[in-house]
Amino acid sequence: MFSSALFRCTFRGVFLRRQRTGGLTKTRSKGPPTDKPLYQGYQELATASHSFQETSTSTYNQRHFSTEASMKKLLVDVDCGVDDAQAIMMALAAPGVQILGITCVQGNTSIDNVCKNVLRVLKVCKHQEIPVFRGATKALLEQTVSAGEFHGKDGLGDAPDPDAPDLDLVQKEGAVSAMIRIVNANPGEVSLVATAPLTNVALAVKLDPSFPQKLKGLYIMGGNTDSRGNTTVCGEFNFAADPEAAYIVLNEFICPVYIATWEFTCRSKLPWEFCDGWLAQDTDKARFMKQIFKHSMESSHSERVEKELVDGQGFISCDSYAMAAAIDDTYITETEHKAVTVELAGNCCRGMMVVDHLDILKKTHKVRILKKVDLERFKVLMMNALK
Amino acid sequence: MFSSALFRCTFRGVFLRRQRTGGLTKTRSKGPPTDKPLYQGYQELATASHSFQETSTSTYNQRHFSTEASMKKLLVDVDCGVDDAQAIMMALAAPGVQILGITCVQGNTSIDNVCKNVLRVLKVCKHQEIPVFRGATKALLEQTVSAGEFHGKDGLGDAPDPDAPDLDLVQKEGAVSAMIRIVNANPGEVSLVATAPLTNVALAVKLDPSFPQKLKGLYIMGGNTDSRGNTTVCGEFNFAADPEAAYIVLNEFICPVYIATWEFTCRSKLPWEFCDGWLAQDTDKARFMKQIFKHSMESSHSERVEKELVDGQGFISCDSYAMAAAIDDTYITETEHKAVTVELAGNCCRGMMVVDHLDILKKTHKVRILKKVDLERFKVLMMNALK
Amino acid sequence: MFSSALFRCTFRGVFLRRQRTGGLTKTRSKGPPTDKPLYQGYQELATASHSFQETSTSTYNQRHFSTEASMKKLLVDVDCGVDDAQAIMMALAAPGVQILGITCVQGNTSIDNVCKNVLRVLKVCKHQEIPVFRGATKALLEQTVSAGEFHGKDGLGDAPDPDAPDLDLVQKEGAVSAMIRIVNANPGEVSLVATAPLTNVALAVKLDPSFPQKLKGLYIMGGNTDSRGNTTVCGEFNFAADPEAAYIVLNEFICPVYIATWEFTCRSKLPWEFCDGWLAQDTDKARFMKQIFKHSMESSHSERVEKELVDGQGFISCDSYAMAAAIDDTYITETEHKAVTVELAGNCCRGMMVVDHLDILKKTHKVRILKKVDLERFKVLMMNALK
Amino acid sequence: MFSSALFRCTFRGVFLRRQRTGGLTKTRSKGPPTDKPLYQGYQELATASHSFQETSTSTYNQRHFSTEASMKKLLVDVDCGVDDAQAIMMALAAPGVQILGITCVQGNTSIDNVCKNVLRVLKVCKHQEIPVFRGATKALLEQTVSAGEFHGKDGLGDAPDPDAPDLDLVQKEGAVSAMIRIVNANPGEVSLVATAPLTNVALAVKLDPSFPQKLKGLYIMGGNTDSRGNTTVCGEFNFAADPEAAYIVLNEFICPVYIATWEFTCRSKLPWEFCDGWLAQDTDKARFMKQIFKHSMESSHSERVEKELVDGQGFISCDSYAMAAAIDDTYITETEHKAVTVELAGNCCRGMMVVDHLDILKKTHKVRILKKVDLERFKVLMMNALK
Repeated sequence: MFSSALFRCTFRGVFLRRQRTGGLTKTRSKGPPTDKPLYQGYQELATASHSFQETSTSTYNQRHFSTEASMKKLLVDVDCGVDDAQAIMMALAAPGVQILGITCVQGNTSIDNVCKNVLRVLKVCKHQEIPVFRGATKALLEQTVSAGEFHGKDGLGDAPDPDAPDLDLVQKEGAVSAMIRIVNANPGEVSLVATAPLTNVALAVKLDPSFPQKLKGLYIMGGNTDSRGNTTVCGEFNFAADPEAAYIVLNEFICPVYIATWEFTCRSKLPWEFCDGWLAQDTDKARFMKQIFKHSMESSHSERVEKELVDGQGFISCDSYAMAAAIDDTYITETEHKAVTVELAGNCCRGMMVVDHLDILKKTHKVRILKKVDLERFKVLMMNALK
Repeated sequence: MFSSALFRCTFRGVFLRRQRTGGLTKTRSKGPPTDKPLYQGYQELATASHSFQETSTSTYNQRHFSTEASMKKLLVDVDCGVDDAQAIMMALAAPGVQILGITCVQGNTSIDNVCKNVLRVLKVCKHQEIPVFRGATKALLEQTVSAGEFHGKDGLGDAPDPDAPDLDLVQKEGAVSAMIRIVNANPGEVSLVATAPLTNVALAVKLDPSFPQKLKGLYIMGGNTDSRGNTTVCGEFNFAADPEAAYIVLNEFICPVYIATWEFTCRSKLPWEFCDGWLAQDTDKARFMKQIFKHSMESSHSERVEKELVDGQGFISCDSYAMAAAIDDTYITETEHKAVTVELAGNCCRGMMVVDHLDILKKTHKVRILKKVDLERFKVLMMNALK
Repeated sequence: MFSSALFRCTFRGVFLRRQRTGGLTKTRSKGPPTDKPLYQGYQELATASHSFQETSTSTYNQRHFSTEASMKKLLVDVDCGVDDAQAIMMALAAPGVQILGITCVQGNTSIDNVCKNVLRVLKVCKHQEIPVFRGATKALLEQTVSAGEFHGKDGLGDAPDPDAPDLDLVQKEGAVSAMIRIVNANPGEVSLVATAPLTNVALAVKLDPSFPQKLKGLYIMGGNTDSRGNTTVCGEFNFAADPEAAYIVLNEFICPVYIATWEFTCRSKLPWEFCDGWLAQDTDKARFMKQIFKHSMESSHSERVEKELVDGQGFISCDSYAMAAAIDDTYITETEHKAVTVELAGNCCRGMMVVDHLDILKKTHKVRILKKVDLERFKVLMMNALK
Repeated sequence: MFSSALFRCTFRGVFLRRQRTGGLTKTRSKGPPTDKPLYQGYQELATASHSFQETSTSTYNQRHFSTEASMKKLLVDVDCGVDDAQAIMMALAAPGVQILGITCVQGNTSIDNVCKNVLRVLKVCKHQEIPVFRGATKALLEQTVSAGEFHGKDGLGDAPDPDAPDLDLVQKEGAVSAMIRIVNANPGEVSLVATAPLTNVALAVKLDPSFPQKLKGLYIMGGNTDSRGNTTVCGEFNFAADPEAAYIVLNEFICPVYIATWEFTCRSKLPWEFCDGWLAQDTDKARFMKQIFKHSMESSHSERVEKELVDGQGFISCDSYAMAAAIDDTYITETEHKAVTVELAGNCCRGMMVVDHLDILKKTHKVRILKKVDLERFKVLMMNALK
């Protein structure tokens, strides 16, 4: 692993460049007030992260025992495309975060590809001790919406990987069963981060109606606030890919729910310059990311993607916004507290998340829709992911 | 009619008050750049308006002949609530504008009330020569969405009017027939301003498929851009009240179409201080408006209305935004050019206008969705309406 | 081609054969009681028809005046495919029946083809005095369901017709306007026979809400009772081709409504032997019918058509069942009196007629769904059509 | 109450009467060929049943081992109303049938009532060794359709039962997990009989996609063939109560599937005289049935129920028709082999089973829709259920 000093140089390089263009100042002014100079903030987090990384050289169980009391326990449900990989790597690198398991679901790519992609990410990050579970192979109603090949055919940019881990490493236990078991073993402590079609998550509550109330929180990347689709006319991919699952989850998860919607991620994009610096880190993780991200980076510059974005160009690691919310309590700076549901019918709106501004649906449970986050903290979390 | 000098006094009074609170400066900074002092702009428009008003003391036909070449010819389709009344009064007062007819449709209130309300407005404005036509009594599918009683039971605030004109003054010819006849008599010259459920307008194209291409333009108040409903969870009243009609109109009117959506009007609200000054003018029209507007002004301060608005409080004369676009060519400063349709199914989204940002629907015809307008010009048009 | 003498033999042969098997008796016992032998019935009607044909050599107006009091006045709304042609010819041949106008609507083929087909039928039948009106070119929502080419590309079996009448013969007045005018001129006297997508009929009530109550009755061919589609999975063509129009008509026509559904016509099919004899008549009309019917007769023997039929093979002149009901008061022997509507949403059921057996919809208006008819009378009406 | 001797008289009386009218002969000729007189058939089956009942006094496991090879193994999924109870009792009494487990699902009544009702039935039948599992408490989307109180508030006619078994007797393992485990332990041997909303069954295939192919067959009571609803306008209760579950099951269960639809059961009703004799048997089971059936028998004579039935009055033990198909291989005498699905949208048709007569959906898997069954065998199975 490369030293944090090396990282800092690269990192500062990025931001010095940005400061020259005035971008940083502007960015900072949007963030929450802080008396500390920005650089010092990075230092502290980097240090915390570093000390944790040392701990993590011990075995999974040791770490589990020694730090359990204060650890943030995560279950992560993914359809591992490139941004899921980024989110997982963020969590793996974050201090004080323990991933209890990664459950896989069809979405960006087939369930086999998703499982393999997660195993590849864990291998690169040297965290193959984390159990991986296979989940739903199809949406509840099997009316599949294709993710196209934004993340490549295999979901990770079709980058060759001759030493990819074998699927035998996937657990025998199914994803839904594992989710229920793990949460029952850690009642009130687990944050479930769902960055994929919500099929597995919906099945968990159908199998165990008390599942939601045993969670600490649910962090979702998906859905819309402003009817701006990225897959169907008005639908975001994760919700449109399994509208019934999203409907079940939004109706039945009465735990604290945080949603990073498509429009939110579009408004929270990072400059491509940040991405350049991020990928330029001299680490195996960064090299891995550069390989798998190449395909979707190129797609991101296409006309269609520009149309999709609410305004202008930029780097959007969708799933990482939800992950950051589960990891860092100070990251979210503004949410909207609203009742939401999912439209199930219609030619244009099936799968669209609906925000009930007028309380017409009379739902008592409200979710937290992310409005503003501390993008500087987000950048730190992103940077650390590839350290 | 009051002299323009009297008006100027009243008018300046309003704005002087506002300048004291700093509101004006703020408002001006949002407007388009102008080298002229604001007051002078008002003056010019007022003068133009005034000279026109003199002309208008001659008979309807004389005026028709003498100024026809340069006149903007309007057909106005209304469900005459208070804001329809405001829009009509704006058009009646605008220089160079000729209303060829007013067609009525059920919406804010019953068709009989709508007809009577239009007759009352024309009487107050001394324009009873303009023909009024009775149109659809129900939505195409009769699945009525109630407007509630935002504008009162009678649509005009339930203000007593012992001398209301008799319904016998309504033309024998039906609204749809009249629309087709009038547009055929003025091919390429008529702007149709539709500030109501689009039942009549949809029927016109079903009866005469060439109707749209004979229009100069269609100006609609209705629909959504961001799935923010004011009647159903995601639907704006005029569209939700007859989704099939809105669908037909958005699909088949291949003429230039301008849409002032609900979200646009919310973002373009005027300060209540402007409204105070507007109503305080010493004219019969202002006194009439004050009477009929009382009910909905009070409603506007309710909790529900605050929730409906995109951000904050303010005075929104919804229908007037579409009317202003038909009247004043320099009023619109930015539009989005998009394919749109209407969602017809769904529990939450039926009646929601859908913007096809991704060109998934492959529609060649695009509409102009109003994004920014010159609010100062809008204020002038509003002010003149009650002069 | 067979001479009429030969035909009579064949024809009587059919029935003699049936009598031997006892089938005829059974059929007759279901029909209304009659003391006359069947053959004599044919004779009488034929005579009545013949004497009427003589009358019809006088001008349209003379006939109109001389027999008006006792005449059945029909308006016929068609998308003139082969079975519409058969229904029109039945009405033209029926004694005591006066067609006030034929309105055309897109359906089996384009509106131009429909108009031309009607003109061809009127020419063959020497009734070009009957006015033909052009109606809707598209369904209300323009979501067209194709009729395929069951009746050929031109709707009349693509039989060459070098002397086809010119479209100039179509009236200048539109179909909907004509329907309203004609019914207003004959209040309570007109039976409207609708054998096509109900677009024109729906528009008539939207333009004039009192239209239905001024009708004597409405006779529809269309819809389902048992969710057995012939076009979509559960939808019959005329309803599926314009579900919103069918919905409007079933909801708003509170006059007596008689519906010959797809399942009813399938259960009421005639033996192909009857068809052979029918076409073998030595008349210009029969020769015309043989030409235009060739294409769909061949289609009728295909596998798909067999699947469509409720049980077994046979000759079904769909539209003629509704026409016969309007012409002959003794033809209907059993109806179901039910509230009905049309399903507007769904992948399989959009356009399906819904029978509310349980009165869940609480509709006060009920229609008469044809259950049993006197097929012998029907055969007589059919036979006469080509005489 | 009638003695069993008396009953036999009555019972034979019924059939003697039928034999006189020739009806029996006709029915028998449609059934599978048999040389034995009907009465002797009753005797033999009764004897077989009796000898089996003796065997069943041994323990569950013994019986399991000794007869396993030739036993029909059933899993039964119920929402235990009165007809589910009848179906369970039929299976318990049938020779050569082994119930491996009974899974419960919300439907006719709450999940707790369903579990208790099953336990009560097992107690009366002295088969408390059969494990009972608790399943879904709500439909997949929780859009509950009420069963009303046709079977009483508690699902079993609100008959007092002071000694009802305790809910503690329900297994700890959940229904879906148990279904998967049991079928995996008996691959290719288990017939699943589902007489309730299909929530549990749908979840089983979502959790284990290979579940259907490990079944011997699936026997469903539910759905429609002719759009004749008994709960919604066009929907049968079991399907309308969870349309998405029914959709999943019809799409994903590619094993042999047999469906006893609502219309089929209506056409297959038994005379009330049979019911009288059935209940008059001098057994604890018959007395239990008489108590729990009283409420729904009274409802069955109401006007609404008469309207629901396809034609006329009669005794319909809906769920027993599906159970009989799983028990007796010679019971089904005619099926339709069709692709089917469920309509998910629409005001009237949501939850309606759709038969794709025209192969529009291009589904390769077809189900067997029951058309005709041997009602005499059905009566024997029914009779034995209360012996």
